[in-house]
Parts: sequence; C-alpha cells; structure tokens
Amino acid sequence: MRPSAVQGPLSGVTVIDLSRILAGPYCTLLMAELGARVIKVETPSKGDDARQYGPFVKGRSAYFMSVNRGKESIVLDLKKPEDRAVFDKLLAEADVLVENFRPGTMEKLGYGWDKLSERFPKLIYAAASGFGHTGPDAERPAYDMVVQGIGGIMSVTGHPGGPPTRIGMSIGDIGAGLYAAIGVNAALYARSQSGRGSKVDISMFDCQLALLENAAMRFFVSGKPPGPLGARHPSITPFEAFDTQDNPIIIAAGNDSLFVKLAQALGRPEMAKDPRYLTNDLRNRNVDTLKAEIEAILKTRPVAHWMEALDAAGIPAGPINNIAEALDHRQAKARNMVVEMKDPVAGPLRFVGNPVKISGYPDPTTRAPAPDLDGNRQAILAELKNGG
Amino acid sequence: MRPSAVQGPLSGVTVIDLSRILAGPYCTLLMAELGARVIKVETPSKGDDARQYGPFVKGRSAYFMSVNRGKESIVLDLKKPEDRAVFDKLLAEADVLVENFRPGTMEKLGYGWDKLSERFPKLIYAAASGFGHTGPDAERPAYDMVVQGIGGIMSVTGHPGGPPTRIGMSIGDIGAGLYAAIGVNAALYARSQSGRGSKVDISMFDCQLALLENAAMRFFVSGKPPGPLGARHPSITPFEAFDTQDNPIIIAAGNDSLFVKLAQALGRPEMAKDPRYLTNDLRNRNVDTLKAEIEAILKTRPVAHWMEALDAAGIPAGPINNIAEALDHRQAKARNMVVEMKDPVAGPLRFVGNPVKISGYPDPTTRAPAPDLDGNRQAILAELKNGG
Repeated sequence: MRPSAVQGPLSGVTVIDLSRILAGPYCTLLMAELGARVIKVETPSKGDDARQYGPFVKGRSAYFMSVNRGKESIVLDLKKPEDRAVFDKLLAEADVLVENFRPGTMEKLGYGWDKLSERFPKLIYAAASGFGHTGPDAERPAYDMVVQGIGGIMSVTGHPGGPPTRIGMSIGDIGAGLYAAIGVNAALYARSQSGRGSKVDISMFDCQLALLENAAMRFFVSGKPPGPLGARHPSITPFEAFDTQDNPIIIAAGNDSLFVKLAQALGRPEMAKDPRYLTNDLRNRNVDTLKAEIEAILKTRPVAHWMEALDAAGIPAGPINNIAEALDHRQAKARNMVVEMKDPVAGPLRFVGNPVKISGYPDPTTRAPAPDLDGNRQAILAELKNGG
Repeated sequence: MRPSAVQGPLSGVTVIDLSRILAGPYCTLLMAELGARVIKVETPSKGDDARQYGPFVKGRSAYFMSVNRGKESIVLDLKKPEDRAVFDKLLAEADVLVENFRPGTMEKLGYGWDKLSERFPKLIYAAASGFGHTGPDAERPAYDMVVQGIGGIMSVTGHPGGPPTRIGMSIGDIGAGLYAAIGVNAALYARSQSGRGSKVDISMFDCQLALLENAAMRFFVSGKPPGPLGARHPSITPFEAFDTQDNPIIIAAGNDSLFVKLAQALGRPEMAKDPRYLTNDLRNRNVDTLKAEIEAILKTRPVAHWMEALDAAGIPAGPINNIAEALDHRQAKARNMVVEMKDPVAGPLRFVGNPVKISGYPDPTTRAPAPDLDGNRQAILAELKNGG
C-alpha cells in the first residue's frame, strides 16, 4: 500500500511535484485527496520553503503538513547528472508534473515543455506562476497578496471609504491551485482519448480575473468599476448582514416570495406591500431605508431567536461564524470535513477534509502524514530499479 | 459545428445542465470553456432564474449571458411524460448531468442517483447544493452570502473591530462551481479507466471550509479562532498594504533576502540589520513598528515611483487596482483574459476569459452567445431523432 491511503477517481495517477509553498502544493493536494500518488521532488538541504513556515508543532511546520499530507518526498539536485537520471526515470513513469517556479526556470534546467513533450509525450505538465508563461509580465514575481491587489478583488472587498481589505484566505494561491487542478484533470481525460499529454499554463493573475466573474460583468456593462459593498450583495435586496440584539446575522431573501415570508417572519407582513419594496429592483433602490426598518426589528431579539423564526419560514439565513464555530458545525462533522492525521513527531493533528465527495470511494476521516524531507527516497529508488 | 465553438480537452463531452443562477452554471461554464457541449434543460415559461437578474442590456440579462455563453437551451417539463422521454434520450447520449436543486428534488422527479446510475451506468452526475446531499442540514436552503457567513470566511476578512465584510465576489457559489468541476473532470478520467460514471456531491458549505485552508490550520494548531487581519498576511512580514503619497501599495517581502532588498530599495539598508527585524519571526512580532517605519518612507513619494524602485529590486509589489485597471492590464490582454461575445439582441459584450490555458488548443478572443430560452430545441430534437 502506498503511503497515500486515499482511494479515489485519480487512483493510479502519479504526480511528480516540484512545487513549493502553496499554489502548486494545493493543486497536488487536491489530486492526492482524489487518489493520486504525489511524489514531491525537493531541493537539497531545505526542501519546500514551507517547511520553515509557522505555526510549528514540536518543530514541525503545520503550514507544510496541512497542504502536503499524504504525499511522498525525495530530494534531487536537478543540476547533478545522477539526480537528473533519477528524475528522468520518475517522469517516464509519471502522468503529471507540477511546478510553480518563475517562468524560464524549467527551460534553464533543460525541462522546458518542448523537451518534456518530446521525451515524455504522455506527460501532462502544469505550471503555476504569478503571471503565466506568456505575455510582457511573465517574468514578474508575485505572491498571493500582490495578485489580490493587482487582480481587482481587493477593490470590491471591504467597506465604502474604508481601508484596503485582504480576502482572509490566500485566494491568489488557492485560486490558482483550483484552476490548475481543473486543467490537469481535463488534460488527463483528454489524454485518455488522444494518448497525448499537454501543458497547462496557469497564471495567478488570470485566475483572479476569472474569479471576479459578476464584478467584471458589471464593469463591462456599466463602464464603471464597482466599489466595495461592505457585507451586502451587489444586486439582490435584502441580502446582507444585519445587526441583532447580540451578533450579526445574514439574511438572503433572494426573490419576491422570500421577501413576503421574511416580512411575515419579522412580524411585519405589511412591509411586503409597501410600494417601495414590491420588487427586487425597488428594494435595491431603497436598500438603505429597508435595511433600517429590518434592523430596527432584528435588534429587539438575539440571533438564536431569529435563526429559529427564519428557519421555520424557510428563509436562507445564518450567523457569521468564526473558524471554530464553522469547523465545529454538525454538518461539517457529518460530512467528514475535519480529518485527523497522526504525525510521527508532532502527534495527532486536524485539518480540513475533502469537499469533493464522489460515490464509489470511501471518504475517510484520517489521512497519512506529510513526508519528511527525502523521507521516501529508498522506496522510490527501489521501485525505479524494479522497473516502476 | 456546434454553437459552442471552443475546442479543448473536454471536446466531445456532452453535459446536460439542469442548474440555475450561479454555482451549477459556473461549473458548466468552466466545462464549456474547456470544450464540452453544454445543453441547458430549462423549466417552461421562465427558465433559469438568472435570466431575470440585472444588469440588463437591451432587455437581456448580462448576469445570465456572462455565465451561460456558448451553451445551448431546450425547455422541458420534467413532470410531463413526453418531455421526460426527451430528457431520457438526452441522458442516454450524455456524459455528465449537473444540477443545483435542493436535495431531494431529483428523487421526487424520479431521477435520483439510484435510478440514474442503474439506467445510465456511464453517466456522471454532479449535484451542487447549500449543504450537500447527506447530513442533518442537507435540506437547509442557502445562498452565497449565507454560506460565506456560516463557513467562517467572513470572520477572517475585514478589519479588527470593524463591521462584517463580505468577500467582494460570490465565493460561495464560485467556490462550489470550481470544486464541482474538479470532481466532474476527475470522474470523467476515472470513467475512461473503469467505464463507469459516479455521483459528485458538492456542498457549498464544505467548499467554504476547504477554502479556509491556512486559517483552519491555524485554528487547529492554536485552538484560537483567527480574526480579521485587515490587509496583511497572517504570518509573513512585511506582507501587506501600505499608504504612499497617493494610493495604497502592496509589498510582499516573503523572506529575509527580500527584506534586505526592500530596505535597500527604500533607501534604508540599515533597517535590515535592526535586531527587531532580523528574521520573519521577529518581524511578525514587531509588525506595527516596522509598518510605521516603512510607511513613513513610502508616504514621501507616489505609487508609480515605488513600483519602479521595487520592480528594479525584484521585490513582489503591486498597486491595488480597481476592476477597470485589472481588466485593462497589458498582461490580461496578452493572455486573452477579456473575450468578446456578439449577442444578437444586446450586441457586442465583453466578459472574462478562460484562465486554464492548455497547449494544443486555441485560446480564442471571441465566444458564442448565450442561448435564448428553448433556442436550440429544433436542432436538439432533430439530432435525437437521427440517433444522436
């Protein structure tokens, strides 16, 4: 049995992973979670930079363990002929190669796509970089927050007139990892039809633009760049965070009949007949007065009271949970969204599980640990000797 | 030639799309952009609710057109036997079925997974719902903002002590669409090996938890739910937005050698030798004093000056672009991240392009329009008559 015990739709697929830190490793984590075998090929002495990133548990980077659980590791110096020979053998047996170096690095190493596709015609090669492998800015360096800024998402997040606001997770890296995984999986399917691999070229910046979707559409239609909207939906009302007696609540009455039910649940059925609030378009125009009216009622009772009333009326609503509350949600437990990993040094650790639930495969509550640097060297070399 | 002119790794794949509004349609848009044929099966009279969502261009919903470009449409009433017969024929020829109804709807229609998998063993069935098809909250309704609140992402976005902040794009829906596409593509690959389809069960709430990644890891390690951090990285310093003489700038000096370069670029090389700032860990502890020192320097010149200096020094940095600036970026143009669609009524419209660049397929700058309701009925029925 492989160190990666997960069975899934990608079982049998082998990924050679040169990637570091987050965007590339998140892509290969998604693949590992779907059953692929992922072999990290790390640089001598330090390996993946993320091994030095905190927080640490008994000296082990939880940052690293979180995105590299269930993978294997071998150290190779791709500038040394003997290590290149091992790398070549790995590629010959592999299905996918993933890296997130700066563009040009693979070419300098002699592993650019031209050479890879000639020598390994079935190999799928995914490169994730800040700005992609083409265009005038291909060589520019980027980190998550830089592309969050350049890509426009920060300009629509936050409160009007307020300071710049970062998305609270690394959407620059995670977004690139998600689109990369979509591309690699599509390329695996295409190869099953054509027999040939392909190169997937992912730019973090491109992915930020793609994620804008609705905000980009509104700009293209109006010619005006949309600004931040605080905690409300840009075109549906009421659809935002409201204050109650204790904590804020989100209410999303996305259509006329839900608005009628909301007015009833608030004990103010006549609100639904108010000429200012008859349609979504009218409610959008009178969003401020409507919010004040709704909030005045909500402030008389706590969230728990309103959640019960809104649930009973079938109105989409919810509290604003902190991370502890979100992960402790009974539905998160019921769907194995928290998994446990036993690290030989750090001990038991918990991480977020796999949201891609696929029939026919188990959805286990445990995961194999992240590898020590070079931790699978002997087993990998032995396999290569025996012809894979 | 199909209405969808895009060639890609999923060319030859047919998707039957019962989904409405955003999460499901975004999944099938991703597939259409990769070459799949997507046939929307819409309800009589109104079809996809998003057809009524603004903004409108000459009476056509740009919201709808943006996520449904290049798809086809047929209206079927799945409660009528003659329409069910057509639907059955479509499924018999299709590879993938996508829906985002409330759990239980497909079972009521007689198209639950048990029946689907028995009758159409090769079919891949993807369901995207608020809380998934299992667990105690499966039946709960949800909209994007509700899962943004329940899923925890809002608790880490915004400024300490500030009001709740929504992510400025529909990450609840778009996130579910992304993970659904990863699952469907993986299932297509698995089917190429096994010959059998599978069910992909996606919960918007699960996806929010998965997107937290680093924030969830920090909670599991510390036991303390992380709070909002404004515009800075949780564990790397300096890595945040700074004020300059005119607009804010993001600087991401992710390691010690970049910090040395930054100190030089700011004309203060001695800052890198300050005992408070020698390591990332020390810089994290002294983040406030370091920020004040850096900002005092940055405020003497505008963003344009600093971008030049930081670029020359190879330090990841960038402005905070609005949507217009982001989409007008020369790199966005160079990589066809803005595409044009000619709608027969609304005229030419622009949308965000495809960030998944795959070798061997064209990356066109135009797209086919979104379908009229029932607009492809005759062609689809004629094909079925001729045996697909």
